[in-house]
Amino acid sequence: MHDTEYRVVGQPVPRIDGKVKVTGTATFADDMAMVGMLHGKLLRSPYAHARIKNIDTSKAEKLTGVRAVITGKDFPGIVVGFMKQYADRPPIAVDKVRHYGETVAAVAAVDEDTAEDALDLIEVEYEELTPVVNWEDAMKEGAPLVHDQAKNNIGATCEFDYGDVDKAFKECDYILEKKFATQRVAIGFIEPHAALASVDGSGKVLFQGSKQSPYITWRHLAWGLGMPLDKIRIINPYIGGAFSGKHEAFDLDFCAVRLTQKTRRPVKIVVNQEDVIGTYRQRHEKHVWLKAGMKKDGTLVAMDCKYIADGGAYLSVAALNLFLFGMFNALPFRVPHVRYDAKRVYTNLPVCGAVRGQSQVIAGYVFNSVVTMMAEDLGLDPLEVMRKNIVEQGETLVAGSKVSSTGLKDAIEIVSEKIGWDEKRSKKEPNKGIGFACGAQISGCRMGGHFASSALVKIGEDGTVQLVHGGTELGQGCDTVFAQMTAEVLGVDFEDVQIEMEDSHDGILDSGMFGDRCTTWSGNAVIAAAEDVKAKLAEIAAEMLGAKPEELVFRDKQIFVENSPGKAIPFLRAVRNAYYGVGKSLYGSGSWSFPGAEIADFSQGHCEKFTPSFSFVAQAVEVEVDPDTGKATLLNSIAADDCGRPINPLLVEGQMDGGSAHMIGQALYEKSLYSDKGVALTGSMRTYKIPTALDVPRLTNHHVLVHDPLGPFGAKGAGETCTTAIMAAIRNAIEDAVGVRLCEPPFTPEKIYQALKEKKEGKK
Amino acid sequence: MHDTEYRVVGQPVPRIDGKVKVTGTATFADDMAMVGMLHGKLLRSPYAHARIKNIDTSKAEKLTGVRAVITGKDFPGIVVGFMKQYADRPPIAVDKVRHYGETVAAVAAVDEDTAEDALDLIEVEYEELTPVVNWEDAMKEGAPLVHDQAKNNIGATCEFDYGDVDKAFKECDYILEKKFATQRVAIGFIEPHAALASVDGSGKVLFQGSKQSPYITWRHLAWGLGMPLDKIRIINPYIGGAFSGKHEAFDLDFCAVRLTQKTRRPVKIVVNQEDVIGTYRQRHEKHVWLKAGMKKDGTLVAMDCKYIADGGAYLSVAALNLFLFGMFNALPFRVPHVRYDAKRVYTNLPVCGAVRGQSQVIAGYVFNSVVTMMAEDLGLDPLEVMRKNIVEQGETLVAGSKVSSTGLKDAIEIVSEKIGWDEKRSKKEPNKGIGFACGAQISGCRMGGHFASSALVKIGEDGTVQLVHGGTELGQGCDTVFAQMTAEVLGVDFEDVQIEMEDSHDGILDSGMFGDRCTTWSGNAVIAAAEDVKAKLAEIAAEMLGAKPEELVFRDKQIFVENSPGKAIPFLRAVRNAYYGVGKSLYGSGSWSFPGAEIADFSQGHCEKFTPSFSFVAQAVEVEVDPDTGKATLLNSIAADDCGRPINPLLVEGQMDGGSAHMIGQALYEKSLYSDKGVALTGSMRTYKIPTALDVPRLTNHHVLVHDPLGPFGAKGAGETCTTAIMAAIRNAIEDAVGVRLCEPPFTPEKIYQALKEKKEGKK
Repeated sequence: MHDTEYRVVGQPVPRIDGKVKVTGTATFADDMAMVGMLHGKLLRSPYAHARIKNIDTSKAEKLTGVRAVITGKDFPGIVVGFMKQYADRPPIAVDKVRHYGETVAAVAAVDEDTAEDALDLIEVEYEELTPVVNWEDAMKEGAPLVHDQAKNNIGATCEFDYGDVDKAFKECDYILEKKFATQRVAIGFIEPHAALASVDGSGKVLFQGSKQSPYITWRHLAWGLGMPLDKIRIINPYIGGAFSGKHEAFDLDFCAVRLTQKTRRPVKIVVNQEDVIGTYRQRHEKHVWLKAGMKKDGTLVAMDCKYIADGGAYLSVAALNLFLFGMFNALPFRVPHVRYDAKRVYTNLPVCGAVRGQSQVIAGYVFNSVVTMMAEDLGLDPLEVMRKNIVEQGETLVAGSKVSSTGLKDAIEIVSEKIGWDEKRSKKEPNKGIGFACGAQISGCRMGGHFASSALVKIGEDGTVQLVHGGTELGQGCDTVFAQMTAEVLGVDFEDVQIEMEDSHDGILDSGMFGDRCTTWSGNAVIAAAEDVKAKLAEIAAEMLGAKPEELVFRDKQIFVENSPGKAIPFLRAVRNAYYGVGKSLYGSGSWSFPGAEIADFSQGHCEKFTPSFSFVAQAVEVEVDPDTGKATLLNSIAADDCGRPINPLLVEGQMDGGSAHMIGQALYEKSLYSDKGVALTGSMRTYKIPTALDVPRLTNHHVLVHDPLGPFGAKGAGETCTTAIMAAIRNAIEDAVGVRLCEPPFTPEKIYQALKEKKEGKK
Repeated sequence: MHDTEYRVVGQPVPRIDGKVKVTGTATFADDMAMVGMLHGKLLRSPYAHARIKNIDTSKAEKLTGVRAVITGKDFPGIVVGFMKQYADRPPIAVDKVRHYGETVAAVAAVDEDTAEDALDLIEVEYEELTPVVNWEDAMKEGAPLVHDQAKNNIGATCEFDYGDVDKAFKECDYILEKKFATQRVAIGFIEPHAALASVDGSGKVLFQGSKQSPYITWRHLAWGLGMPLDKIRIINPYIGGAFSGKHEAFDLDFCAVRLTQKTRRPVKIVVNQEDVIGTYRQRHEKHVWLKAGMKKDGTLVAMDCKYIADGGAYLSVAALNLFLFGMFNALPFRVPHVRYDAKRVYTNLPVCGAVRGQSQVIAGYVFNSVVTMMAEDLGLDPLEVMRKNIVEQGETLVAGSKVSSTGLKDAIEIVSEKIGWDEKRSKKEPNKGIGFACGAQISGCRMGGHFASSALVKIGEDGTVQLVHGGTELGQGCDTVFAQMTAEVLGVDFEDVQIEMEDSHDGILDSGMFGDRCTTWSGNAVIAAAEDVKAKLAEIAAEMLGAKPEELVFRDKQIFVENSPGKAIPFLRAVRNAYYGVGKSLYGSGSWSFPGAEIADFSQGHCEKFTPSFSFVAQAVEVEVDPDTGKATLLNSIAADDCGRPINPLLVEGQMDGGSAHMIGQALYEKSLYSDKGVALTGSMRTYKIPTALDVPRLTNHHVLVHDPLGPFGAKGAGETCTTAIMAAIRNAIEDAVGVRLCEPPFTPEKIYQALKEKKEGKK
């Protein structure tokens, strides 16, 4: 797909941060150092559940080179969380530890080795408590409580009912009930968590860390440290991937600041990969009991969904997770009658939060599997059934959001044709299978507090353009995309635009990088800011051209008077006149939020104005299963997505490949394991297997060009859509290949072999 | 004087940068370090005038720890200057050196000692040339030329004629002709020049140095390095004084960048105090032949002024210096008929540029001396003569600028009364004398290129305010003053406002900190930016209050509806609603320049729209002269200034004290000496004597509150006014004390003793 409507937008320009990244000069958190900087280390609990009876730091404090030691006592009475109403986590453990690897103390010393040595000298007296390490045990009457106030270890719930579910089921021709379970997985970004804090003589803290949503972290820091916002400045360096794992302020972040406050010297803390994988944020272990009803022609009528999320010791964004799973459970399919009952269960395991694709990943997996199973059971073509039930443009979902645009229908056609759905279904080869699925993802939402995005555009006296936006460049390419938008609005070249790193002093706030929010929300803010400065320059140019500002067209670094051939001046001349003639600086600012955006009550599943738009994807895969070993090999994947107008097709492709590869990992390989004591068993890249290049087949991507009415240049989110369909496609393909109906990824050789064996033995 | 009209403006609030400065945590250029940073050193010429035949750097390059060595060859064909049309200086010497201490090569090494050692290994082959070290030799026919293209070593001229000078002189009752000479002096800031440069993989340079006008330096760097502006980012740390000595990009600045480009590692160069005093910018040695004519009632009629500035090897701002000296020669007095002929002469001495008070310092010294001498000769009271001739409000000067406001008349009354002028004149004590003088200074001007000031004001979600302005905090207190203005406009507390360091990425450009420009120009920009964001917040608040935005009053952190008692909301609630309710960021930008500001042709002395306003000062001093030693002791100084409305009286006092002390140095103590070979003889704080606290008597300051129509809150410049009168006051007091008519500071015991001796021997 090649976009011809615009000059810079829609073009596959190379990344704006490419040069500094390939030359290794892009500064990531751990690349930073400051004069007199100390190195911090965290002491972690070896127990999943224990009472802290005493911590003796005296020996550690006496060690030469140690500058400060802190414990939970240094954060008196503070409890934080992702959202105020779901706060349940002390910055570091105070009276008890609730999961393996939870931080109980921190040290700052002149070098890393000294800090390490000091950790060994801290004497912690624990009283071991019985850990609950799975949801079933946790919910039993009389089970040990992770949090005293959470009865039966239930931390959050979400329930609702649409239409008349019982009546609707009675009218169904076919009802399927299935239990699905998806495993806890690590997030898998490469750059570990890192934080560098310093403080000046006025008590103002400068925080620089590896953060996905620096302004969320900024607010968390102020909260967890009991400081006013204006006493903390946060500047983001380059980020080495996040996938929703770097939103919150973590133990290292709070400790780096406390230690710098105690020592008055800069303190850097970097977490090793072991701890990142074994003890920080992960994707929930999810259990889904789905009952779905269909007419014999394949029309979906009703569903009843029970959902339990096993999420570890603290809530993080769990409430939103339950809400989203319910809100968009069947999406992109239409189900008029829905009942939903979800619980988030505390266990003594590391915390599960948001991960790329959030709930849509599992909802999409479950519902596409169910639709396919039901079609097969009714002898219908699953693809036909999908076509029949997909939501349409302008349609309002039962949960209340409106579909502003969709290209899913076309996407399905492209994929089914490219993969050869009909031929392959008609003449099936033994042990080979084909699977299809459709996915959808929101383009951001409002999540309490500050929810707008903002941007600032400045045109320099040399005609170059500086852009400051509230989005965060995590590797997804938003700096590039926003530079393209800015260049398009101002009619300059992509190369003329420069990006400034995020800095809370710039005040270009943003509510954060989640739910595919970046392109739509920050993008619209970038356009608003660019239009603002353009209007100021137009005033000056109009004067020079003897025209009205509204008659001017900015294109090819020229400013034209519309319909007046030859009446034009170079962009740069107008800019120079602003600075050197008129005596003005050229500045524009803008912010954007989805008009009327509501804050949802996450405990119930309805919100009229939740998200401005949805992105869609259709994806098909082919697998071959070795019946002797049970090994499923992914042969091929074809995806077509509708992310509105791709601002940069190259980057959208990258997102599609990344999203697919990410979920191939969960579908076939990954599982985060803990012992029955709650100790990490897969806490390293060696023991925790994410797919390598060799495990990922050729991924072919197509775009459906759709102009979304609310999107910047018609764009929608593109980062997560491709995580929502592929798992189901793989599952469906395996069933198509060897006729076993699996529900619990990862689909390892063992599981498939076992299923084949049972099938042979005639068990169902 | 206590200002009651405003709540924050006019109050003596403590400095906003006080805490970080007194705690030693304010970061100055030399406090900075970067990972992998190298240390640079400069090799300076021991000769004042020599041809460079060859530079062999091979030995130095081989020294362990040396990473790069550069020479003039690394700046091929580049010639820079303060202003494009007066460019005459290579970044470092190429084919010849023109003054002692000029840089011929630079080294970057792993530490300072290695860099020092490397300098010793660089072999420079010089062919010594005859240096011209004073203006008289330099202007002789056949004198060696400092620059081949500058005939008779004349680098710049300024000539003009107003009224009918010859006719006017014929009508005068008394004409005085006098030759004055003022000495070359060092500038005397404490923080030495320092530069830290680094470069990223995209070739973008980050420059952080001790710079008075970072945006001037920024443009100079781009020019001298042959780089586009957008490839250089300049961030200013705190600055330890400048007094106009840190505008330009110097050898160290260019070399730090070249060395970082060569090594790809950060490079820091810090100049020692010896070199700062002996080889960098100084105040011109000035020779003035003044012929002035007066009616017998003391009315000034005509003047004819010849002026020669001996300025060393390069022009720097010399052209502006000549222009200003002519434009405002007699100010604050009115002289209708004026002839002016000025030349700037090249010599083989370090470069003279702008120094606090620029030309007004010497013009004020000369003309106040002349007025006093003429009054005494005519048997008139000098003060009466001054009163009679001072310019008035609304008056247009012969040179073309309009006096927008003046409080000089009141200032004269205050000072004459406080010092007891009449009594002391009537019953004079032996060897004690009293002197009076009046001064004036512009409030900035346009100097080519970008001439506007700009500012950015952001209101955070917590109600705190971030201010970015284009002024530079040099110690004068502009950060504090602008925070006060911002707080006043928004009706918040001073403590709610924070300042961000200057950063060219912010694009808050400014033409620089010169000519008392800061308060007026940047101040008006700050107000414009604050009003801009205030208007945006007013929109939102009006909605909340059911009122029109224009009805709202921002005061005491509340937003009131005018004339509707009780109808108000807290400022913070409106801000929160903007962020959390409406979904907007609060951003304001503004710029200001003197409406219609012209760029003057510096070679002729006329400019209608040169400066928005003038500040004025009246100052009187008492001295006692020891007839046996000739030592003049300053007993007392009383000054009253009109700087419009003092935004912060405390800071204005600081400026008045500083300006007075600065010029007490030139009047009594300082002289920068060079050997007949042009080698610095006073290049250290030990040999170059600036006044200490013990040398400065009690300085009493008063303000005349004037509301200037163009000034921010009526303010005008305040930093330089007090440099313009005190030298003449001291000279006049010495004459009053012992009846010797001196013209050439510093008025050392030797000079006074010699004059007394000659007087006794009856010589005139």
